[in-house]
Amino acid sequence: MFDLNQIKDPSFLSDLSNDELYVLAEEIRSFIIDKVSEHGGHLSGNLGIVDLTIAINKYFSHGEKFIYDVGHQMYTHKILTGRASQFNHLREMDGLSGFSSPAESPYDVWEVGHASTSLAAQAGLIENGVPCVSIIGDGALTGGEALEGLEYLSTLNKKAIIIINDNGFSISKNVGFINKMLDELRSTRNYSNISSKHRASKSGFWDFIERIKRSIKGFFYPPSVFESFGFKYYGPIDGHNYKEMFKYFKYADNQNRPTIIHVITKKGKGYKLAEDDKIGKWHSVPSFDKTTGEFIKVENNEVSFSHAASTYLISFYEKYKDLKVVMPAMTFSSSMNNLQSILGANYFDTGITEQFAASFAASLSINSPYVFLPIYSTFLQRAYDQVHQDICLQNLHVVLGVDKSGLVGEDGKTHQGIYNISYLKTIPNLKICAPKDYKDLFELMDYAFLKCQSPIAICYPKTFIKEEANLKAGESHINESWISITKKNNPSAFLITYSNLVDYISKEIEDLNVEIINARFINPIDKDVLLKIVSKDRPIIVYEEAVKENSLGAAIISFLNEQKINKNITEFGYPLDYIESGSIEEIRIKYGMDKKSIRNEIKKII
Amino acid sequence: MFDLNQIKDPSFLSDLSNDELYVLAEEIRSFIIDKVSEHGGHLSGNLGIVDLTIAINKYFSHGEKFIYDVGHQMYTHKILTGRASQFNHLREMDGLSGFSSPAESPYDVWEVGHASTSLAAQAGLIENGVPCVSIIGDGALTGGEALEGLEYLSTLNKKAIIIINDNGFSISKNVGFINKMLDELRSTRNYSNISSKHRASKSGFWDFIERIKRSIKGFFYPPSVFESFGFKYYGPIDGHNYKEMFKYFKYADNQNRPTIIHVITKKGKGYKLAEDDKIGKWHSVPSFDKTTGEFIKVENNEVSFSHAASTYLISFYEKYKDLKVVMPAMTFSSSMNNLQSILGANYFDTGITEQFAASFAASLSINSPYVFLPIYSTFLQRAYDQVHQDICLQNLHVVLGVDKSGLVGEDGKTHQGIYNISYLKTIPNLKICAPKDYKDLFELMDYAFLKCQSPIAICYPKTFIKEEANLKAGESHINESWISITKKNNPSAFLITYSNLVDYISKEIEDLNVEIINARFINPIDKDVLLKIVSKDRPIIVYEEAVKENSLGAAIISFLNEQKINKNITEFGYPLDYIESGSIEEIRIKYGMDKKSIRNEIKKII
Repeated sequence: MFDLNQIKDPSFLSDLSNDELYVLAEEIRSFIIDKVSEHGGHLSGNLGIVDLTIAINKYFSHGEKFIYDVGHQMYTHKILTGRASQFNHLREMDGLSGFSSPAESPYDVWEVGHASTSLAAQAGLIENGVPCVSIIGDGALTGGEALEGLEYLSTLNKKAIIIINDNGFSISKNVGFINKMLDELRSTRNYSNISSKHRASKSGFWDFIERIKRSIKGFFYPPSVFESFGFKYYGPIDGHNYKEMFKYFKYADNQNRPTIIHVITKKGKGYKLAEDDKIGKWHSVPSFDKTTGEFIKVENNEVSFSHAASTYLISFYEKYKDLKVVMPAMTFSSSMNNLQSILGANYFDTGITEQFAASFAASLSINSPYVFLPIYSTFLQRAYDQVHQDICLQNLHVVLGVDKSGLVGEDGKTHQGIYNISYLKTIPNLKICAPKDYKDLFELMDYAFLKCQSPIAICYPKTFIKEEANLKAGESHINESWISITKKNNPSAFLITYSNLVDYISKEIEDLNVEIINARFINPIDKDVLLKIVSKDRPIIVYEEAVKENSLGAAIISFLNEQKINKNITEFGYPLDYIESGSIEEIRIKYGMDKKSIRNEIKKII
Repeated sequence: MFDLNQIKDPSFLSDLSNDELYVLAEEIRSFIIDKVSEHGGHLSGNLGIVDLTIAINKYFSHGEKFIYDVGHQMYTHKILTGRASQFNHLREMDGLSGFSSPAESPYDVWEVGHASTSLAAQAGLIENGVPCVSIIGDGALTGGEALEGLEYLSTLNKKAIIIINDNGFSISKNVGFINKMLDELRSTRNYSNISSKHRASKSGFWDFIERIKRSIKGFFYPPSVFESFGFKYYGPIDGHNYKEMFKYFKYADNQNRPTIIHVITKKGKGYKLAEDDKIGKWHSVPSFDKTTGEFIKVENNEVSFSHAASTYLISFYEKYKDLKVVMPAMTFSSSMNNLQSILGANYFDTGITEQFAASFAASLSINSPYVFLPIYSTFLQRAYDQVHQDICLQNLHVVLGVDKSGLVGEDGKTHQGIYNISYLKTIPNLKICAPKDYKDLFELMDYAFLKCQSPIAICYPKTFIKEEANLKAGESHINESWISITKKNNPSAFLITYSNLVDYISKEIEDLNVEIINARFINPIDKDVLLKIVSKDRPIIVYEEAVKENSLGAAIISFLNEQKINKNITEFGYPLDYIESGSIEEIRIKYGMDKKSIRNEIKKII
């Protein structure tokens, strides 16, 4: 009935009846399922928020800007603002971003990919006189910055509408009082119908009456904590019921003060498997078979690095016990589900709280020998200060699992993991290493847990590797040394690289007389090997899936300068910039960082 | 009556009557006033918490660990744990740290200097079975990580006692609902006497009775929001009344669940000027005259860089209007009081919320041309991700005032500003500059506000400079170029430096044939000047008050490598390490970074 591709902007919504809105929503959900099954993307959250997005775009049509927290649930927003046709290139290179993107549309005002910033963004717009509604999930609301945002907005004497999109389910389980508060409010359904609509501040007798009313009401419905914070609160209301949503939008819109509208939505609505998902499997998905729900895997018999890390940890736990894992909210996407069941009380899912998680891991490590903190490379930025001040200043033995290091592909510029070598190398006391494959990961984890007594980051990429099922934890004994992968008697050049690039490039240049070094320890560098190589007086090439700024290459260059060795090296890395979506291989090609380009460059040198 | 120097540990407290505790407290306050007036340090907070510290050390004497948030209010803790005699070397090199220090004493378990981490630290200890009480100020409680900590602890099924040390006054004014909640609780004094002491969860009839009781009570005393969060709440109680404190400590101690004890203390207690301080002047002070309260200034007719920045901003505002300043809590210590009065509603004190502040500044800058975010170098680490993702990814024109860059002296290892060049240089799109003096600051600020359209950080050190009162905003027009300070026809060497080191070293080596370059733009570097220098084929020396890792020196070395120029440079900077307390000059000497050492090194080279 609706041709989504013809939509230019949300103005057409004003002519639609509620019944027509339901039809539109149905079509949008179906469209999203189609497109995500083809391209991969964020599914559950986008399906849950379709009705809510339609409703706010119909009701708030007087120039209000919308800020969606995290920005990965904006597919309906994109469709309503004229971008449906671009979904054929969802998350592709030069295609439609999976997140908010001001470059795409004037309807996107805040470019975002990390959680919990929406309230700060909203506050800034409102303080500038720009009307703005924020939409934040119950998961993102647990993040410290969102709570700081609630604090700020709670005492603002201006209209500020916050919509809590509550599906009772963050990326993984919710933790703490925010969740508890929302839970309690959910269980007192119909609160909104009883709550006085215009409880303006009164004085004297009317205030007394108001207090009696409130006291009586409080017997049945305790006042919402959000009201104690200073917000006008409406909710919980049904995020799939247009009539109800419009009613409370109007109440909120008439308030000249900060207001929370607590909307209950059903995550995954319209796709049964996503609706029934309890572990977050359908939060962010690769392309999949719509009918069977099977994810389309790139290669067989391969596992992700994060899966390998989880397998290692299970093996480690069997042998050494006393392992503690701190996980800020990403259990499923970090492949840690099995580990979680096995560790039980020693597995701490702290919610979307990277800062707390890092300090907490530091504290745990004071009395626990084996503490692991797995965290996405891009989200670890959120805990930069805690890694610096709490883990490294105290020189505590926390093992950081820096997941999705390097290019991340389709998630695009807000999620790239090409910065972590650069920023982790600015922190004192922190060792940094990176495995090239499954076995390397096991060896480095052995090193990190059993030999290393200080903070160490193991950076592993977002890629699939061959499983080596016979490997167990605690069976290797390695040093902080680099390894020559292709020993040559008289090589024409040395190529120093690490992580999955080692195997990626090795085959491509096996016919060239180049010695390839696996620099699996990035900090400290292996000075012995380096000096030996330098003494051969051959070209030295460093090849990294990282920004060149403060990379391994930079460390080598600085070391040579310090040693007063006059030698230039050739560096292949990324410029210090933000890199858009695209498959990992496409991005490599674009930046001349793919194996063929590197082969050509090497041939010019040798 | 008490010889504080004879105290070995807090066990002697068990024999003291409450009356004796009052005497002890009085003596400790007097001792603290003496020592801080001699050495400088944190005064108000330490005076306010004397009784509370004595009380917890007397009551919680069964192996409980204490975590003090921020750790700058631990002077009484240090005295009670055998460190009184070391106060003669408070904050000196190799002396007593002004913060928590596990190296000093087994009674310090968490080394800290940044706010809001105490609850995470407490959670980690408790999850490891170590009993632990945290003490957190009302200011630190506003920080996002503290709120994440409250979330975690609120749902813990274990004993966890949080003492809120509420003096109604953070470093500067408090913001938001935490403050509002505490205010409300303060205004309902005696709440604790009415609150049911053991409101265990009941069912059926008893639950009904309990709800009636609560409803009636709620008419007079609304339930504390902390109880809605899931905490048992006691308070507010008088933090200078031992009997009252012990009574509620016992209640809390008998709970097997998370408990908040809300203690009201008087900041600055015992020193009238500090008691009456409304702007935070007596929070952290230099040495001062005890009788007159006058701060002992190092040099006359000089002002701090932050004062100069404030003067610039006032001048800028007069001319251009529409200036917005976002200040996370440090108004007085950043010398921004006057500016705050002048800007009024355009000055946003956001409380101790560096993350929110950075995102908020980003959002403000979407519709405001001139947004300034002043923040201490060390605390900016807390907003690393927000500067990266919200300001720089969106390439928004926010001017960061990175205060106390370089060595900070007595505040020691948790506060050093020698890391910011290193970590800011890892962020795309961010220009970095550093003024050598008053005029340089004005010129760089002109550049930052009026010429630059992208994010820029102006890094200024903690030092005093000569004021140039005739300077006004908007009168200079500079480029991103380096400036030769001592032009020579045929120099024997080039010294590249920036910030206050330029003038510091210039006089010392004026007799040497060395051309000194003021590299006031650190990112981007001035490639033209650099190539010109390189072409002269003389030694190049880089001298920075920063860690060498990813410093200006590193940028120069990488650039030369990229240009395939075979030339070593000599770098003087700090190792990537944590640097203890001491005067700035003492630290320079210790690391061979003082002007005499540098002069000697230069003489060896030329």
